[in-house]
Amino acid sequence: MRMYAVIPAGGSGTRLWPASRAARPKFLLPFPGPRTMLQSTLDRLEGLVDPAHTFILTGRQHAVSVGRQLPNVPQQNIVVEPAARGSGPAIGFGAMLVAMRDPDAIMGSFAADHFIADEPVFRQAVQSAAEVARDGYLVTIGIQPGRPETGYGYIRQGESLGEHNGLQAFVVEEFKEKPDLETATRYVESGEYLWNASIFVWQARTLIEAMKELIPDVYSCLESIAAEWDTDQRDAVLEERWPELRDVTIDHGIMEHASRVAVVPADCGWTDLGDWNSLGEVLATSGEDNLSIQARHIAEDTHATLVFGNSRTVATLGVENLVIVDTDDVLLVCDRSRAQDVRRIVQRLKDNGDTGLI
Amino acid sequence: MRMYAVIPAGGSGTRLWPASRAARPKFLLPFPGPRTMLQSTLDRLEGLVDPAHTFILTGRQHAVSVGRQLPNVPQQNIVVEPAARGSGPAIGFGAMLVAMRDPDAIMGSFAADHFIADEPVFRQAVQSAAEVARDGYLVTIGIQPGRPETGYGYIRQGESLGEHNGLQAFVVEEFKEKPDLETATRYVESGEYLWNASIFVWQARTLIEAMKELIPDVYSCLESIAAEWDTDQRDAVLEERWPELRDVTIDHGIMEHASRVAVVPADCGWTDLGDWNSLGEVLATSGEDNLSIQARHIAEDTHATLVFGNSRTVATLGVENLVIVDTDDVLLVCDRSRAQDVRRIVQRLKDNGDTGLI
Repeated sequence: MRMYAVIPAGGSGTRLWPASRAARPKFLLPFPGPRTMLQSTLDRLEGLVDPAHTFILTGRQHAVSVGRQLPNVPQQNIVVEPAARGSGPAIGFGAMLVAMRDPDAIMGSFAADHFIADEPVFRQAVQSAAEVARDGYLVTIGIQPGRPETGYGYIRQGESLGEHNGLQAFVVEEFKEKPDLETATRYVESGEYLWNASIFVWQARTLIEAMKELIPDVYSCLESIAAEWDTDQRDAVLEERWPELRDVTIDHGIMEHASRVAVVPADCGWTDLGDWNSLGEVLATSGEDNLSIQARHIAEDTHATLVFGNSRTVATLGVENLVIVDTDDVLLVCDRSRAQDVRRIVQRLKDNGDTGLI
Repeated sequence: MRMYAVIPAGGSGTRLWPASRAARPKFLLPFPGPRTMLQSTLDRLEGLVDPAHTFILTGRQHAVSVGRQLPNVPQQNIVVEPAARGSGPAIGFGAMLVAMRDPDAIMGSFAADHFIADEPVFRQAVQSAAEVARDGYLVTIGIQPGRPETGYGYIRQGESLGEHNGLQAFVVEEFKEKPDLETATRYVESGEYLWNASIFVWQARTLIEAMKELIPDVYSCLESIAAEWDTDQRDAVLEERWPELRDVTIDHGIMEHASRVAVVPADCGWTDLGDWNSLGEVLATSGEDNLSIQARHIAEDTHATLVFGNSRTVATLGVENLVIVDTDDVLLVCDRSRAQDVRRIVQRLKDNGDTGLI
């Protein structure tokens, strides 16, 4: 199987503050550890995608960390974007790089900062999607929703495309934006909706053709960069043209408007690890009472407490349900039930002009 | 008033771990801040004792810190003990240094790591005790007990010695060791007992005479050191003779056996700040909901929480009644009601051979 992977490694996000920062986003951190989320993204593709067939698109400020974390990915496969332009240009350009090697190649695009508990099921779904992609579909892997989550987008599945590699595939009826709770509940009860995890599989040329039709401005700009990729003009053209790209997501730009879109539902324990409590829930499946990442935790009468550490010893006594996040310059102690309000602290720091801590 | 002060600055204590360590005892720390306990010990004597009339006796490993914290105390007034031998030799030698300047001088001896909330009452009591000391008494300042505390020793007061500087003085009937709760309750209800805070006032020569009578071995050893104090043999003799001293407290060696012992009761808000919760109680009198020492504390929905910091920002969210102690190498998060069990963590570290963290 000649499969490729394209990993857009961008974004920031402060819901896992103070571990994650603008300059140190979630994908570079060891959640749930010991490997970083970016490393785990590649690890779980082992056997499906060779590191030499993996392309990473990342920002200037993360290039060094990405390079160090992924020593097996060739340097020329790590594209350092002159400016952040969203997942559309990143994944689209990744598809062009793949097509330059093999236009018929199947490629997957995987977020760098999501967690998947059941990797065998995930790999099965990727292979299933690859089969469907051979028929010219843009395929997404949809997650069986475990609850009426309002923080995710949804995919409505349509008619069956039959079984592929042991899993059913379906035509996609519609992509839905993040719903309110009532709508989300209806979605989940109907059994027709899946979470949109932004995991895509397609032939490189299928995506390139879709770009040409649906986002022609992005297509032609990327095309002009790709045309010079193997010349000594690579950096100059990248530097000049990339900032001209329109900031567009692959969902809005392509998936919501393309004609042949399919979905393979998978129950693979996916989560985007959106806050500290969700990380605690992932770790709780380990069966430990307390959970520590990178920390030496000395726990006395301590329960259901998550410690994200920083080489220091963390001792706790007579506490429960806490998240303790120990970083070089900030310490957070938070009740787990309040994890979503961490953004309130980030907002206060922003209001105070304390951008160094964000 | 020619008053002197002798401050034994020794001991360690791990009840305020991890802020206090073997190498960084309580008296060097800013409890309740911003000044350290040692600095506050001198500050509260302002107007009564000149820094040049203050002697500090401390250990080798704390000499540099003591010198830096008390820049106004002359270098020759800071005695660096070759070995720890308890408060008896330390205070006794301090008395000899005072007597070398003025044998009639009144001196007070004050622990370096206690907190006193009502400094005017404290100063009034010291002056009252000084008047009583002029009559040849060894005087202690007793604290009106606010509760049946089992962690302190008690003093039983006897017949009145009349009013001095606006306060009643009494003959001391007896010193009592730390009692059990039942006994402590009886003491407090009787109205005849005071807490022993190890605050002493006397004429230097009164103490020296008592030492000569009650602990003659200590006396003669100290005497031989004092004899060479103003010669070039000072360090050699100190080094040679000091380790020979018997380890004895001033209470056991002198106060419990001396004939003319008096007490001046004072209601001066004294506490030995024995654990994190008691520090929290001291700070709570400030009227603040949350209390921080050296920390920049960003509190969201946080109550009755004490943060001892270390230059980092500490953010808390949805928690209450916590003690958070942030040091270079260890972080403690502890429910305030469990503050006395911090020693269990220290014990675990000791059992693990982690002496660097103690």
